[in-house]
Amino acid sequence: MEVVNIAEKLSQFQDTWSPKVVGVINDFHVKLVKLQGEFVWHHHDVEDELFLVVKGRLCIKLRDRDVWLNEGEFFIIPHGVEHLPVAEEEVHVLLLEPKSTLNTGNIQNERTVSDLQQL
Amino acid sequence: MEVVNIAEKLSQFQDTWSPKVVGVINDFHVKLVKLQGEFVWHHHDVEDELFLVVKGRLCIKLRDRDVWLNEGEFFIIPHGVEHLPVAEEEVHVLLLEPKSTLNTGNIQNERTVSDLQQL
Repeated sequence: MEVVNIAEKLSQFQDTWSPKVVGVINDFHVKLVKLQGEFVWHHHDVEDELFLVVKGRLCIKLRDRDVWLNEGEFFIIPHGVEHLPVAEEEVHVLLLEPKSTLNTGNIQNERTVSDLQQL
Repeated sequence: MEVVNIAEKLSQFQDTWSPKVVGVINDFHVKLVKLQGEFVWHHHDVEDELFLVVKGRLCIKLRDRDVWLNEGEFFIIPHGVEHLPVAEEEVHVLLLEPKSTLNTGNIQNERTVSDLQQL
């Protein structure tokens, strides 16, 4: 039981596309991640996923539209919905999702991080 | 599927101690609430509860210590742990917790809000 300062946690790592677990609430994880560039199209069969932008600006591409998120804004991607996060410049994001969530969802490739670091 | 701007949602209501649901992630709720004054000692039998301070400063009293939260900080209260939120001045909080969570936990009184408004 510790107070988590989001900015302080974000200062502890520099790598991108590698979510760090910073909180556990029942069967959910709170994660922090830095994003830059383009990820990979994927969906999650079961898990909904919340993206909250803490710093910067994020585009989440859906198959039918682009969703833009600024600081202080969040978007929930329902399970089954294909999405592609794109960050022209580095963006800091708080993720909220079931513990079972894999970052690349239905895709397994070199971007997959299955062993999450806890900060 | 809409972008949620936290500040804009907070501007839609003024009442305190009455959480509004602003997002659903599987069996979890994202809520926004304004707090001022002292609540009631309670715990949640099953649900862990995350308090993220969006604006202001919040004290969460535990039986053995006081936890102070500033903007951009969060704290997770594990189920079973008695707590008492106290806000000397108005504070804006994002809550994250299972849908089953009742604001007053094991206590039922005039502060209990069982029919949550969705914004």
